[in-house]
Amino acid sequence: MRKTNDKCNCTRIFLLHKKASLLAEGFAKDAAERDKAGGTAKAQKDAIRNSGLLKVLIPIKYGGEGQSWSVVLRIVRELAKTDAALAHLYGYHFLHLTTPHFCGSHEQKKYYYTESAAHNWFWGNSFNPIEPTLQGKTEGDTVILNGRNTFSTGSQDSDRLLILWEENGQPYVGIVPTKRSGITINDDWDGMGQRQTDSGSVTFKNVIIHAEEIINLTDSERTAFSTFDAIISQIVLANVFVGSAEGALEEARRYTREKSRPWYLSDYEQAVEDPFIQRRYGDFWVDIQAAVTLVERAGEKLDEAWAKDKAVSAEERGEVVLATGAANVFGTKVALHVTSSMFEVMGARSATRKNNFDRFWRNVRTHSLHNPIEYKRKNIGRWVLTGEYPTPTDYS
Amino acid sequence: MRKTNDKCNCTRIFLLHKKASLLAEGFAKDAAERDKAGGTAKAQKDAIRNSGLLKVLIPIKYGGEGQSWSVVLRIVRELAKTDAALAHLYGYHFLHLTTPHFCGSHEQKKYYYTESAAHNWFWGNSFNPIEPTLQGKTEGDTVILNGRNTFSTGSQDSDRLLILWEENGQPYVGIVPTKRSGITINDDWDGMGQRQTDSGSVTFKNVIIHAEEIINLTDSERTAFSTFDAIISQIVLANVFVGSAEGALEEARRYTREKSRPWYLSDYEQAVEDPFIQRRYGDFWVDIQAAVTLVERAGEKLDEAWAKDKAVSAEERGEVVLATGAANVFGTKVALHVTSSMFEVMGARSATRKNNFDRFWRNVRTHSLHNPIEYKRKNIGRWVLTGEYPTPTDYS
Amino acid sequence: MRKTNDKCNCTRIFLLHKKASLLAEGFAKDAAERDKAGGTAKAQKDAIRNSGLLKVLIPIKYGGEGQSWSVVLRIVRELAKTDAALAHLYGYHFLHLTTPHFCGSHEQKKYYYTESAAHNWFWGNSFNPIEPTLQGKTEGDTVILNGRNTFSTGSQDSDRLLILWEENGQPYVGIVPTKRSGITINDDWDGMGQRQTDSGSVTFKNVIIHAEEIINLTDSERTAFSTFDAIISQIVLANVFVGSAEGALEEARRYTREKSRPWYLSDYEQAVEDPFIQRRYGDFWVDIQAAVTLVERAGEKLDEAWAKDKAVSAEERGEVVLATGAANVFGTKVALHVTSSMFEVMGARSATRKNNFDRFWRNVRTHSLHNPIEYKRKNIGRWVLTGEYPTPTDYS
Amino acid sequence: MRKTNDKCNCTRIFLLHKKASLLAEGFAKDAAERDKAGGTAKAQKDAIRNSGLLKVLIPIKYGGEGQSWSVVLRIVRELAKTDAALAHLYGYHFLHLTTPHFCGSHEQKKYYYTESAAHNWFWGNSFNPIEPTLQGKTEGDTVILNGRNTFSTGSQDSDRLLILWEENGQPYVGIVPTKRSGITINDDWDGMGQRQTDSGSVTFKNVIIHAEEIINLTDSERTAFSTFDAIISQIVLANVFVGSAEGALEEARRYTREKSRPWYLSDYEQAVEDPFIQRRYGDFWVDIQAAVTLVERAGEKLDEAWAKDKAVSAEERGEVVLATGAANVFGTKVALHVTSSMFEVMGARSATRKNNFDRFWRNVRTHSLHNPIEYKRKNIGRWVLTGEYPTPTDYS
Repeated sequence: MRKTNDKCNCTRIFLLHKKASLLAEGFAKDAAERDKAGGTAKAQKDAIRNSGLLKVLIPIKYGGEGQSWSVVLRIVRELAKTDAALAHLYGYHFLHLTTPHFCGSHEQKKYYYTESAAHNWFWGNSFNPIEPTLQGKTEGDTVILNGRNTFSTGSQDSDRLLILWEENGQPYVGIVPTKRSGITINDDWDGMGQRQTDSGSVTFKNVIIHAEEIINLTDSERTAFSTFDAIISQIVLANVFVGSAEGALEEARRYTREKSRPWYLSDYEQAVEDPFIQRRYGDFWVDIQAAVTLVERAGEKLDEAWAKDKAVSAEERGEVVLATGAANVFGTKVALHVTSSMFEVMGARSATRKNNFDRFWRNVRTHSLHNPIEYKRKNIGRWVLTGEYPTPTDYS
Repeated sequence: MRKTNDKCNCTRIFLLHKKASLLAEGFAKDAAERDKAGGTAKAQKDAIRNSGLLKVLIPIKYGGEGQSWSVVLRIVRELAKTDAALAHLYGYHFLHLTTPHFCGSHEQKKYYYTESAAHNWFWGNSFNPIEPTLQGKTEGDTVILNGRNTFSTGSQDSDRLLILWEENGQPYVGIVPTKRSGITINDDWDGMGQRQTDSGSVTFKNVIIHAEEIINLTDSERTAFSTFDAIISQIVLANVFVGSAEGALEEARRYTREKSRPWYLSDYEQAVEDPFIQRRYGDFWVDIQAAVTLVERAGEKLDEAWAKDKAVSAEERGEVVLATGAANVFGTKVALHVTSSMFEVMGARSATRKNNFDRFWRNVRTHSLHNPIEYKRKNIGRWVLTGEYPTPTDYS
Repeated sequence: MRKTNDKCNCTRIFLLHKKASLLAEGFAKDAAERDKAGGTAKAQKDAIRNSGLLKVLIPIKYGGEGQSWSVVLRIVRELAKTDAALAHLYGYHFLHLTTPHFCGSHEQKKYYYTESAAHNWFWGNSFNPIEPTLQGKTEGDTVILNGRNTFSTGSQDSDRLLILWEENGQPYVGIVPTKRSGITINDDWDGMGQRQTDSGSVTFKNVIIHAEEIINLTDSERTAFSTFDAIISQIVLANVFVGSAEGALEEARRYTREKSRPWYLSDYEQAVEDPFIQRRYGDFWVDIQAAVTLVERAGEKLDEAWAKDKAVSAEERGEVVLATGAANVFGTKVALHVTSSMFEVMGARSATRKNNFDRFWRNVRTHSLHNPIEYKRKNIGRWVLTGEYPTPTDYS
Repeated sequence: MRKTNDKCNCTRIFLLHKKASLLAEGFAKDAAERDKAGGTAKAQKDAIRNSGLLKVLIPIKYGGEGQSWSVVLRIVRELAKTDAALAHLYGYHFLHLTTPHFCGSHEQKKYYYTESAAHNWFWGNSFNPIEPTLQGKTEGDTVILNGRNTFSTGSQDSDRLLILWEENGQPYVGIVPTKRSGITINDDWDGMGQRQTDSGSVTFKNVIIHAEEIINLTDSERTAFSTFDAIISQIVLANVFVGSAEGALEEARRYTREKSRPWYLSDYEQAVEDPFIQRRYGDFWVDIQAAVTLVERAGEKLDEAWAKDKAVSAEERGEVVLATGAANVFGTKVALHVTSSMFEVMGARSATRKNNFDRFWRNVRTHSLHNPIEYKRKNIGRWVLTGEYPTPTDYS
């Protein structure tokens, strides 16, 4: 990983964020329309591909930018300001891409980093730990997969898929080219939000997985590091939520400045002068600042732990889980509040289908259901009371 | 008005509510689809026409049911459980229908009650006090209208329109047949919620208004009673919000019972047994109960004041404004909370376009923007501190 | 029970409330000082005795006023406006006094009503269902009690005590004169709020209980009515909370009007004109109205169920439990909010020991801990989801 | 200022925080009793004196530790965990001590830093910008003061006082030895919280101020830096609030672990196992984490701006005001919530005068009234909307 206090790297990071901002600006142009249309944002995904940002986290020696998770997460947040679906895809791309690193063999890590950088792969998944319906059957050196996974985020228009299946009740994780024979990506995602995350189902019919594509570890190889998927997933989501809140505030601000009229009982001529409206904006901004600092701090903790690689201890993992969990719980709360309340500072005329400002709330609302914050609070609270870190699972 | 403690009338009220429940049940069948389609709910409006419920408030001597506002408002709430747009149209029908009563001449009151009962009119409006863009020009006994009003709720497929215009900067109110020559109802309502309230614009081109259709009072005729429009409007909206919350809770309850799975970390086999889920439902229900009792109490206060007719004093009006304002502020808060949070007790699979459960939030969110609760709080608070009742306006 | 729509009774109720208001006014004079001093409010309890209000609920045929629970509860709320401790004692007086009615024999009901009316008894308790430490030993027709009960509310300066003990692990309830030999009321109540509720411990040393003083029922005599203690307790507490909130608002209002200065950045010369302050008052008032209507509705439900006496069904009991539970949960939330936030509309100078306005929060905070609202929400939510009424316990 | 990434300095900072922790531990022993007693915490203030922590911020060349504001603020937060009054005194000590630096002459800065370090002065104030009642009269080279200032925090047992007076309607700031002839520190602080902040009134009778003790600047010397008092005051308070919340959580945690019983309806044997209790702790902790990161970030921003000294621009000042304002608003909200709600996870037995846990809420409640968060929100919101930084005042 490049050092962040390295002056030269600061410039590189600045340029990466600049690229992200430009992408976000482009996404904004038709985000409202694309939300209505749903389906795959092919052009936008290609813009991400062309930006080079898919390699940000890949170590330099494997052909990437060698940046830290913090850099990735800030890009996720930047993209989420105008398009939470694409931000999700971008963040999860790295979750999948790094799976061989934190829970595969050294060869797999090297292979997938190198190839991904070389071919500029965009990763998706077909991986639903809550409902493992895909079944595998070992035949010699290969496994044959049959079945169907739901919630396969980013599966459409992806180059590689991280997949989960069961054989004899045991879960296995592997990686396949999306185009492998027998894989059908179904265009059946019908979420009320995050409409362009391509999170539909994937059908597997006699799909062959080769031994080297299976990245499950033996028990003796399992370490605290090998369970970092939950951490990465939580902090990516948190950044999507917080970025959505930031984007909603920015949209609202623009609308209030340009179009809102003061309430007819207001003593002021401009909506921006009304103390009630100012007060709400102040309150939103303060809450968002708290959320931003929390996700940033969690990102830094992840960077530190990630740098320790397989040497990271269970306690160190626990601390990162707490930080990312807190960011996720808090980010969810703030994002739901801001995206639902933003209309009150814009006024009745803002609530049109054309403006489609409700997509901010629909995105956060839909996405945040995938890991109930009540249970996250419980896990954190148990640690507060007993000192026991949350048990490593797919969600903590 | 019939007496409510009259045993015979209790039965009549029961039957009216039964009709409302059956209508609501019918609306539920395609409410999700109709929300997506938008436009006029012609079949459903006709079902309301055929139910006889459009006459509920019309005094018996003029051919109606002679029931109180409380009876109307309970029907509004019942309809809002499955279709907040139709509930809005139904409630506002009475706001418009009674305008000749509370601020017209005795002849107008008699005429419009009688004709409305006889012809089963459904009333709509073209009446935007915030932005009076329609202009009138007196020519002898008539006024000629030209211009365009926005937010003309219920204008499509209506029989009579309550309209507002200005002449020489003075506002005037009148009633016209929707089909009068020169009136064009534009199909341009694009709200993100309350999609079938037909709240688009209406264009007036040389529309003639006759003297007897103008219901503005001379200054000497103005009484506290003549400003009851704000009260009725506020309490209709409050009932739409509270009914929406009740309906959302009912939908969520059905989903949780039939489809939700307990979170995989839950110790329980059924979602309904999970204490975290139970706790949330308890909290929703308690908040909704508070909102229900508040709108009911406000309805009773309106009944009492309404019974006093033109004799109602400014103080008595003030008390009703406070009660309806409180119900509106509180109903808004609870309805937004429940309709946004309901997903958390249903789970990720509930958030689909097919289920379209987000329409509950979109309806409340859109509708509640039309009278900012911050200013309502301010007006109420000023009364708490100084004893001055809210100044009669179109919103208080 | 007298009929409330009886005109003559309306006057009687008016006069009872008038008495309560006068008592509350008197309590206000030194409530702040008495809170600091703690101990028994002997003079104030005697004022309640002298007012005749201790007989309000006792049926006319037994020498009382024959009023409903609603009348009692409104008095509780009125007293709580200036003194939540005395309101608690007054409300619990009736909980204890009616125990022979709802779970004793007819003779006990008649005896205790008659004697209580005749001698103007003030009832207290030594009754802690959570921690039954008092032990009984049957010796022939009597039971000998030894041990110590904590949280014995109203025990000091009481005439009769409702007590709870165990023998062989079974709970028993009885009534004794407070002066009975062997009973020592300890002056050890140290609550941070509700300082004058005399809720210390009571020591029993060879205290004799006679058979006719034991009011436990045989299993066959147990009815839904015999478990009304939880209902009464819940609704008394809810009224204490809501009355406290009303009193806090009234104190704040007086202070803001008479002493508060506008914030130096305010554009207004008087604090009462500041829109931010007005808005907060409006918000407090709306929340309090919701709480008031909820406790009133629960009181009416209790009246109806109480009128059915032993014929009340388990379902009817369940409905009252839900209504009182909702009032309790909601009343707690509102009262905590208002009593903590009131300082923000009074300003920094209000927060002195001399003013002692923090007693409102301390009272509600302390008192509301005796029945956790989280579990109350859970019980209500379970009913929402499954239709099962909360199991009758000492708290539901 | 020492560099924080200097390894040697890290050790120094560690040792300073260690000292602060030990002080806080000592304060905890009788914090509950001292809160009841009120008055000056002479022994504790002397312990702070003896710890050397009064010199932390004084530059090395003037005899101090040369640490940054962040280091000071973390000590403030540490002390606030067990004693918010002493934390306030400690934080304000530096506000007063640095006044000659940011708005005095170079000679004054040097003199007061040097003398304060040499004599280990503890600074207090007699400085109430809201109500400038102290009057000055220039007589040659001196000013004669007469009058009385309220809210003179830390005046008792102080060595130097920062004072504010008016002459001909103009405000002046100066520094005097507390023992100067004519100054009487009145023992009349009667706050319901922050009981040992010695915030009573100070009477001045013909007190002489010498020219070199007056630190008011000429208009031409005024810079953005010279208005840093509001920034420092805001962030000190924010750290007191957040530290109070952290300390409340720690007290609650200890109580729940050692003394709380599970609610009798709980399925668990230990309170710490109850999911409802765990969930609350998780929620408290997450909110506190957000507050902690926010105050820390604001502290870092202050460090950066402070390092620029008189060169700091109005824009840079504006950014620090926003960060400290956000930390203050958010810290207030979280601290009030946690300190009021902590009882719900401890249970009814925790709410005793002996435990005196209500002091956490009383401290935060009292202290947070001195700069209304509604106006702070408004100022921040105005900036969000218009880009105008909050106008420099004593509170922003």
